[in-house]
Amino acid sequence: MDLKRRGNQTVVFANPPVILSSYTVVGPKEGEGPLGKTFNKIQKDQINGEKSWEVTESKMLQEAMQGAIDQAGIPKEEIDFMLAGDLLNQLISSNFAARQMALPFIGLYGACSTMALSMAVGSMLIDGGFARHVLIGVSSHHDTAERQFRLPTEQGAQRAMCAQWTVTGAGSLLLGKNGNGPRITSATIGRVLDFDVNDVNNMGAAMAPAVSDTIINHLHDLQRKPQDYDLIASGDLGTVGLALAGEVLKKSGVNMGAQFTDCGVLIYDSSQDVHSGGSGCGCSSVVFSGTIMQRIKAGELKRVLLVGSGALHSATSMLQGESIPGIGHAVVIEA
Amino acid sequence: MDLKRRGNQTVVFANPPVILSSYTVVGPKEGEGPLGKTFNKIQKDQINGEKSWEVTESKMLQEAMQGAIDQAGIPKEEIDFMLAGDLLNQLISSNFAARQMALPFIGLYGACSTMALSMAVGSMLIDGGFARHVLIGVSSHHDTAERQFRLPTEQGAQRAMCAQWTVTGAGSLLLGKNGNGPRITSATIGRVLDFDVNDVNNMGAAMAPAVSDTIINHLHDLQRKPQDYDLIASGDLGTVGLALAGEVLKKSGVNMGAQFTDCGVLIYDSSQDVHSGGSGCGCSSVVFSGTIMQRIKAGELKRVLLVGSGALHSATSMLQGESIPGIGHAVVIEA
Repeated sequence: MDLKRRGNQTVVFANPPVILSSYTVVGPKEGEGPLGKTFNKIQKDQINGEKSWEVTESKMLQEAMQGAIDQAGIPKEEIDFMLAGDLLNQLISSNFAARQMALPFIGLYGACSTMALSMAVGSMLIDGGFARHVLIGVSSHHDTAERQFRLPTEQGAQRAMCAQWTVTGAGSLLLGKNGNGPRITSATIGRVLDFDVNDVNNMGAAMAPAVSDTIINHLHDLQRKPQDYDLIASGDLGTVGLALAGEVLKKSGVNMGAQFTDCGVLIYDSSQDVHSGGSGCGCSSVVFSGTIMQRIKAGELKRVLLVGSGALHSATSMLQGESIPGIGHAVVIEA
Repeated sequence: MDLKRRGNQTVVFANPPVILSSYTVVGPKEGEGPLGKTFNKIQKDQINGEKSWEVTESKMLQEAMQGAIDQAGIPKEEIDFMLAGDLLNQLISSNFAARQMALPFIGLYGACSTMALSMAVGSMLIDGGFARHVLIGVSSHHDTAERQFRLPTEQGAQRAMCAQWTVTGAGSLLLGKNGNGPRITSATIGRVLDFDVNDVNNMGAAMAPAVSDTIINHLHDLQRKPQDYDLIASGDLGTVGLALAGEVLKKSGVNMGAQFTDCGVLIYDSSQDVHSGGSGCGCSSVVFSGTIMQRIKAGELKRVLLVGSGALHSATSMLQGESIPGIGHAVVIEA
């Protein structure tokens, strides 16, 4: 069999996997935002009747995955792998959701890039002949992430203007070998880059170099230009990171144009007091599974590049004075 | 292309990936144990001249991966993916090692099952036609894990007799599409099972049901019996978990026999005050990459089943009163 590779970092699928269905569950703030109508379910509050935010997050993830299965109408016995990830220590949201789903489970960690990473790995498992269907689920929760990565939420500390707001949301996709729907045609797995940013309130800046590197390599590998895509969405750089990435790319001779945006910029309105925009695994997860999927299905977008962006630090690494390594993973979705 | 699946959970490789090389770096306690001579490098102490245990762990992982690359003599440009995982929050050991390696990076989390999980996923990426070579690295460090999951190490708290000792060690394998060496012929990705164990000092008991489930499904899928393997090594159940798994399997009609052992049982001597044995991602990583690889290459073992076992809890989930979900992933390695 020929190697399904192009250039240095990109894989091209021989039989592009199909996105058979998608489902999203979000918190109230996301529901009030400009994409509110694109989500399947909006919770009334952050806790949703559970005993902890962590339990809420895991149940949201489980609900999103069950929603994707139900929408596709595929029997669970035909789902060969569940791929999931979140931001919490040891991926507990995903692990506890996997306990309920009882499917063969692969846990992935790519911080906020986990949705794109899961789509890339899931597609390779299907196109490689190892699965009929792969279920993907990725979540984050504002309050579980805030208290783990930053400050006690009760403290109400003032946030920096370059800081992003962790999205409360869970998105799920069911990928299949056959069927109707948008197809994942190629993927570019990113390298870890670190430009010595050590401000945990400016993760957009920490991730922008890695996202730019992945976009440059992706375009080079496939001999494409940004204009070959109807939409290029990073997830999630926020307004600060998006501007920086645009600048870095321009200096490298790549003019991104107006179709370059960011899931963290799209999900909230500037009136929502989120400063630089949304972040967290759940952000690109629900923006892709919601509005982007709908726009592809409506024929409005023919070819989309989703570039997941991850900041690969931990609270411990920050306290120990390490800088924030970034990564970007890209997947191409075509109508 | 035909689906490369057998039964419910097992994938069988069409062109089994080759393990081209392996390399291990361990701490002093592991070096003093019965497998001391099988490791490539033994550090003199736990910190090895770094400013924190966390930095030490990441550098051990990096050193193991560089060691595997050097042993195989493969140019870095021909390595298409790096797959790595560890126990630390947000996988910082792997992320910082990936920053140095500068290879397209996929982060995996399966707790102590991460080595087997990485071997399974890496093999699918190669056999699926997406990579020429995949670099795998998995690590743990006693002191980074103890202070994250249990108690401040300075406290010197008395350990329970069923507790395991987190291994300080990093192991790496370089997998290739072609070449000489043992081959990974099939893999069984496990489901998350939870039998309501909530004692963080008895993770062997928490993981035993999931390991048993994976072994039963693996044998059923391939229509094999335990005696078809020269060695079945779980990693890491410890003495308590190994005995429990043997019992559960026996009740299910599977008699494992003397070739069923555990990486956590093999790595230390009972005189080393480790109670139930070794644990941590690094344990099955260095036991497989060290002694098991050497015994396969020497012709002593023809067919081995490595069953990685993971306890998928976090310090937060324990404090919130959750039980400990377990998982088991199996890979078959043949001479």
